[in-house]
Amino acid sequence: MRHLITTDDLTKEEIETLFADAESFLKTPPPKLLQNRLIITLFFENSTRTRSSFEIAAKRLGADVVHLDVAKSSTKKGETLYDTAANLNAMGPDAIIVRHAQSGTPYQISRHVDCAIFNAGDGAHAHPSQALLDLFTIRKHFGGDIAGKRIAIVGDIKNSRVANSNMRLLPRFGMEIVLVAPPHFLPTATPFATTTRLEEVLDEVDVVMSLRTQTERHAHPIYASLKDYAGDYCITKERIGERNILLLHPGPVHRNIDIDDAMLADPRCKVLEQVRNGVAVRMAALKKLILANG
Amino acid sequence: MRHLITTDDLTKEEIETLFADAESFLKTPPPKLLQNRLIITLFFENSTRTRSSFEIAAKRLGADVVHLDVAKSSTKKGETLYDTAANLNAMGPDAIIVRHAQSGTPYQISRHVDCAIFNAGDGAHAHPSQALLDLFTIRKHFGGDIAGKRIAIVGDIKNSRVANSNMRLLPRFGMEIVLVAPPHFLPTATPFATTTRLEEVLDEVDVVMSLRTQTERHAHPIYASLKDYAGDYCITKERIGERNILLLHPGPVHRNIDIDDAMLADPRCKVLEQVRNGVAVRMAALKKLILANG
Amino acid sequence: MRHLITTDDLTKEEIETLFADAESFLKTPPPKLLQNRLIITLFFENSTRTRSSFEIAAKRLGADVVHLDVAKSSTKKGETLYDTAANLNAMGPDAIIVRHAQSGTPYQISRHVDCAIFNAGDGAHAHPSQALLDLFTIRKHFGGDIAGKRIAIVGDIKNSRVANSNMRLLPRFGMEIVLVAPPHFLPTATPFATTTRLEEVLDEVDVVMSLRTQTERHAHPIYASLKDYAGDYCITKERIGERNILLLHPGPVHRNIDIDDAMLADPRCKVLEQVRNGVAVRMAALKKLILANG
Repeated sequence: MRHLITTDDLTKEEIETLFADAESFLKTPPPKLLQNRLIITLFFENSTRTRSSFEIAAKRLGADVVHLDVAKSSTKKGETLYDTAANLNAMGPDAIIVRHAQSGTPYQISRHVDCAIFNAGDGAHAHPSQALLDLFTIRKHFGGDIAGKRIAIVGDIKNSRVANSNMRLLPRFGMEIVLVAPPHFLPTATPFATTTRLEEVLDEVDVVMSLRTQTERHAHPIYASLKDYAGDYCITKERIGERNILLLHPGPVHRNIDIDDAMLADPRCKVLEQVRNGVAVRMAALKKLILANG
Repeated sequence: MRHLITTDDLTKEEIETLFADAESFLKTPPPKLLQNRLIITLFFENSTRTRSSFEIAAKRLGADVVHLDVAKSSTKKGETLYDTAANLNAMGPDAIIVRHAQSGTPYQISRHVDCAIFNAGDGAHAHPSQALLDLFTIRKHFGGDIAGKRIAIVGDIKNSRVANSNMRLLPRFGMEIVLVAPPHFLPTATPFATTTRLEEVLDEVDVVMSLRTQTERHAHPIYASLKDYAGDYCITKERIGERNILLLHPGPVHRNIDIDDAMLADPRCKVLEQVRNGVAVRMAALKKLILANG
Repeated sequence: MRHLITTDDLTKEEIETLFADAESFLKTPPPKLLQNRLIITLFFENSTRTRSSFEIAAKRLGADVVHLDVAKSSTKKGETLYDTAANLNAMGPDAIIVRHAQSGTPYQISRHVDCAIFNAGDGAHAHPSQALLDLFTIRKHFGGDIAGKRIAIVGDIKNSRVANSNMRLLPRFGMEIVLVAPPHFLPTATPFATTTRLEEVLDEVDVVMSLRTQTERHAHPIYASLKDYAGDYCITKERIGERNILLLHPGPVHRNIDIDDAMLADPRCKVLEQVRNGVAVRMAALKKLILANG
C-alpha cells in the first residue's frame, strides 16, 4: 500500500513522472481517471487552501469526496484516533487525506488502513504536497534542471512543516539551501548553511522562499512584535531591488510582515502560480498513489 | 468577465431569457450544461437556504461544488479578503458564490478574479438572486406582464438587502412600489411612496412582500418588542381578508411576527413556491454567466 | 410516500430484498441507480460515522448530496423545524436524512414533505439503519436463518436508540433478547428477560451487542465512574474466554470501558464489519425507498 507521508515516499523517477502528469493536467482538461473512487478528507486542523486544493484535485479527476470536519466528531466521544481511522477505512475509501496538529498522526493512521494516506500537514513535521508543488514551480520556472540553484528559506523554519519538507526534497534535485532566520527560529542542528542576516544572501540565491510566522504554534510571543520581525526579514521590493530572484511563499501571506505589497504585486513573486500548480500536482499525486494501490 | 453583483448586471432581455431557462428547468430534468465546471461557495455568513439553493442549482447542472465555511478559515490567520479570493481564483473555479456581512465585498472580490462572482447577499446592500426569483414568481403568477402592478414591501426595509434589490429590479419591469414600515425602518430618502400604516395600502396592491425583522443587524432593539411590531405589521388573515393578493417573503419567516399561521397556510402565500423557483432561477443564472465567460 | 422512521416501516419481505441488494453491493461495484437524484443530509446533532456512511452510500449510487450542518442554520433565526423542512423539501430533494437530539423529529418532518425521510437517529427513540445493519451482520454470520439465536444487549439500554431499534427488529426474525445492565440502565417495563449480571448469560447467548455509555444524555453521572461500570460490564477477553460468540457494537467504542483491547482485536469482534456492511445496507435502503417513491 502506497502512501504520501513525506516526500521520501516517492523516488526521483516517480516525482518526474508525477510532474509530467501535473504539466499535462495544467494544459488540457484531465480524464476522469478516479471515477467511482472515494476520497475522504479528514481535517483535525482548519484549512481553507490545502483542503480545497485537494478537494478540487480529486473532483477534477472524477472522484467522489466526503469531507469530515473532525473538530466536531467522534473523537470528542472518547474514540481513539486509531478507531476513527479504522472505521473510515472500513467504509471503503481509496484514499484518506489527513491534516493534524500533531506530528506523526498520518503515519500512525497509515499503519491501520488499507487505502492511501495523504499527509496534508502534520504539526511541524511534514507537508509533502506543498514541497512537491514548490519544487514543481521552481523547475517550471528554470525550465527543468535546477542542480546548483540556490534557495534561501526565510522565516520561522523551526516551526515550519513546509520548510522541513523542502529541506528533504530540494537537495535531492541538486538545490543548495541556506536558512535565514533569527536564532530562535533556526533548527538546533542542521546540515545547511544558516545566517541571521537576509541581506548577506540575496546576491547569492536564485530563489527566496518566505514562510509565514506560525504565531499559533508558539506558546509565548517570540519576537517583541511582528513589526520588529518584518523590519529584519520582510521580503520588500527595496531589499530585493532588481535582482533576478524567484519569490515563493506557501501562504497565507502576512502582507508587509512576510512579503510587502510591492513584491506581492511583482511578476517575480509566484505565490498564485504556486496555488495553481498545487491543484495539478495534487491531482498527479492522487492519480499516482490511488492507481498504484489498484 | 460577467458577474452578478446586483440585478443591474443583467439587461431586461437577459433576464427574460434567463426566466425562460428557469421555466424549462422547472418542467424537465436539466441537461448537464455545467459538467466539468467548478463552483466554489464562499460563505462568510451562515446560511442554510441560499447556500443549499445555489449548491443544488449547481449540482443539478452537473457542476462540481466545493463549499468553504470561511468563518473558520485563513482569514483568521491574517490573510486579507483579497488574498483569499485571489488564491481561490488561482485554483481555477468557473464561479465563486459569495455571502458576506459587509456591503461591497462581492464587488471588491470581482475586481481581483477571472471567474464569475455571484453575490449571495452582502450586508444590507443587495441580494440579486433573491430579487430575480421574486420577480420570476410574480411574473409567473400574473402570466407574464406585470407593468402597472402594485407591490407593498413591508417591514425592516432599511436593513434589508432583499428589499434593496427588489426596489432596483421590480420598477424596471413596470411595477409600482409602496414601502410600509415604522419610520425607523424606512429609508431616509426614497423615490417610492411610503406609509407607516399597512391598512392604508391593502386595497391598492396586488402583491405584498413581507420581510424578516433583521434583529441581528440592529445594535439596539428598535421596537419595544417583536410582538409590538407584529401588532402593526404582521400579515394576518384577518388583515388581508378576501383580497386577491399574492403574498411573498424571502424567508426564514418569523411565524406570527412577519406572517401569521393562517396566511402561511393560505394558497395566496407563495413562500414555498419562491423556494422552488429559487433553485431554477439560480440554475439559469449560473448557466448564463458561466457559459458567457467561456 | 415511503419513509424509514423505524424498522417497522419495512415488511420482513422488504428487508430480505433489501439485504439481497446490500449483499450484491458488497460484491460488485453498484450501478448508478440514483443518478440525478438529490439527497440532503440534515444533522442537528454531530455525527462522523452515520453521516459519512449515508453520504458514501448515496454517492456510490450516483446521487448528489448536499450536507447541511444545522447547528449553525436558520433554526437560529427563529425558524421552526417544520419550516426548515418544508423549505428544503421545496428545493426538490428525493430524500432527507435527519438526525436530531429529540425523539420524534424525523416523524414530524415526514408529515410535511413529499420526499423520503430517513431517520439517522432521533434522541433515545430509534436508529433504524443501525438496527438493519446489525441484523444484516448477524444473518451474514450465521448464514441466513437466525430463528432461536440468542443475543445479549449490554449497557445503557434505556438511553440507547440502537438498543430500541434492535429490540423491535431482531424478534421479528426470531431472535431472543436478554438485556444486561445495571438497574438504572434497564427500561422500566420490558417484555424481554433482564439481568444485572453479565456472567449469568454468557453461556446462553450466540451474540453480544455492547452499547456505548451515552454519557452525554445523562443529566447527572449515573455511575460512580466509567471504570466502575467497566468492572461489571466491559466485554473482556477474560470474561468471554473461548466461547463461540459474535461481538457487536454500534460505535464509537469506549475502549476498555465497553470492550477491552483484546476483544476488539479478536476475530469474533465484528465492529469494523458492521461499519463496512453499514454502507451497503444504507445503499440498499436509499435505493429501495427513493425508487419506490418514483
